[in-house]
Amino acid sequence: MARSDFRFAHSLRVRWAEADMQGVVFNGHYLTYFDIGVTEYLRDLCGGDAERLKEAFERMYVVKSTVEYRSPARFDDVIDVCVRTARLGGSSMRVLLEIHRDNELLVEGENIYVFADQGRSQRVPDAMRALIRAFESTKPEE
Amino acid sequence: MARSDFRFAHSLRVRWAEADMQGVVFNGHYLTYFDIGVTEYLRDLCGGDAERLKEAFERMYVVKSTVEYRSPARFDDVIDVCVRTARLGGSSMRVLLEIHRDNELLVEGENIYVFADQGRSQRVPDAMRALIRAFESTKPEE
Amino acid sequence: MARSDFRFAHSLRVRWAEADMQGVVFNGHYLTYFDIGVTEYLRDLCGGDAERLKEAFERMYVVKSTVEYRSPARFDDVIDVCVRTARLGGSSMRVLLEIHRDNELLVEGENIYVFADQGRSQRVPDAMRALIRAFESTKPEE
Amino acid sequence: MARSDFRFAHSLRVRWAEADMQGVVFNGHYLTYFDIGVTEYLRDLCGGDAERLKEAFERMYVVKSTVEYRSPARFDDVIDVCVRTARLGGSSMRVLLEIHRDNELLVEGENIYVFADQGRSQRVPDAMRALIRAFESTKPEE
Repeated sequence: MARSDFRFAHSLRVRWAEADMQGVVFNGHYLTYFDIGVTEYLRDLCGGDAERLKEAFERMYVVKSTVEYRSPARFDDVIDVCVRTARLGGSSMRVLLEIHRDNELLVEGENIYVFADQGRSQRVPDAMRALIRAFESTKPEE
Repeated sequence: MARSDFRFAHSLRVRWAEADMQGVVFNGHYLTYFDIGVTEYLRDLCGGDAERLKEAFERMYVVKSTVEYRSPARFDDVIDVCVRTARLGGSSMRVLLEIHRDNELLVEGENIYVFADQGRSQRVPDAMRALIRAFESTKPEE
Repeated sequence: MARSDFRFAHSLRVRWAEADMQGVVFNGHYLTYFDIGVTEYLRDLCGGDAERLKEAFERMYVVKSTVEYRSPARFDDVIDVCVRTARLGGSSMRVLLEIHRDNELLVEGENIYVFADQGRSQRVPDAMRALIRAFESTKPEE
Repeated sequence: MARSDFRFAHSLRVRWAEADMQGVVFNGHYLTYFDIGVTEYLRDLCGGDAERLKEAFERMYVVKSTVEYRSPARFDDVIDVCVRTARLGGSSMRVLLEIHRDNELLVEGENIYVFADQGRSQRVPDAMRALIRAFESTKPEE
């Protein structure tokens, strides 16, 4: 995908503690960046309503991650974490993620989430479903 | 796969700092556990030769990770990281990983590595190839 | 202090993700090592009773840390985290920590803990107090 | 000290992965926040000259940290890391650090750095010394 396929991106700067002896970001940290990206995406959708964000986020459990590392991020790089909901199921959602540095794609992947409360799967809350649909509606479904 | 399909496992204990507000391990840390598992797998294959291990490890770059989270690990759990090389290509290797707590499968996934030196892909070193083949030879190829 | 002043030590191996671009452990991780050391020290004192350990650990809040970095730990080093309770107050305890690699002192410091429940300070539990006193009784108080 | 004693502050948001089972930031992460604060402080002093920043930062080794935890930061908090050079020695510098959330002091501490190249201590670079003196000159020395 091109970066223009994403309506949402969050910028962050790579920390010293995140680069390893090879001078590149340790691969596990990209899942932290994904997590931050999804948090900020939901914050944006919730219009900054921290309470609603927290409620949503605490019930979302990631069940699968895929990460493809194309080119490494390095200490002090400013990177953009691009986030897009590609599919909204009954109790699950599939979120596509890309990390760019300027116009270069560094990492791409996805997280699949299920909604659950105390171990039992739950329907994606209707309010959240509506917000995501409205936000992503200008994008073609896959 | 059953755990018996793995000839190598490394045990570790979940740290306080790795469990999040949901009381479960933050998902990015599983890639750290994968990384530790692969390091110990190679150490075992190298017969404890730290120099050879370091040489190998510094040229291995992970290009893709997949992680499926089935059941969460928690603070203080002792978990087993199971490691197996499923495919050895010219310059790449595919490593299967599972994390178990006692007899319960918690996480499964894989890392695909390429060997490279200063950005150029390299053949998997012959000595390492031989060690892996010998170690895994009692397992059926996928 | 000499290492012989500590009756308890816990060994661990430095992870790849913990070494930075200078090839040495990022300084914040030493507080993680301290935390692991104190957990294992308490586990040892509790005779492996995980429930009691968890109860104690969840009420301990660190209020001050001091860390002196004398010589760096590196990837793959096996290090010993030495732990000793130097002072037991009404609701607080002062724990001395040292990190050694073989006979070399790498890091020394201390954590001061207070016991609290829902924000109110609590007396150090008598059972724990007795265990610590018995364990450290062969050491001179500072 | 009052927050007004600091001429520099850097804001950041607490990540999900940084809060522990007690719902508060794991104490080791405050040293990461300190490190980020010092990086941004130096970036500011270097006028955004990334090359100069990197040169300086790669030769600075922290030799001592002190951290006092007064009140916990929590997931999603926006916190300000306040940074001030309190003393500039021949080859060392003492940096005071405070973390605030709005008008509340959460954490205070300091890092002492020495400049070194390949293990030998070095004079703090004159250009950097001048920048720090100029920046902090409106503050009283301790």
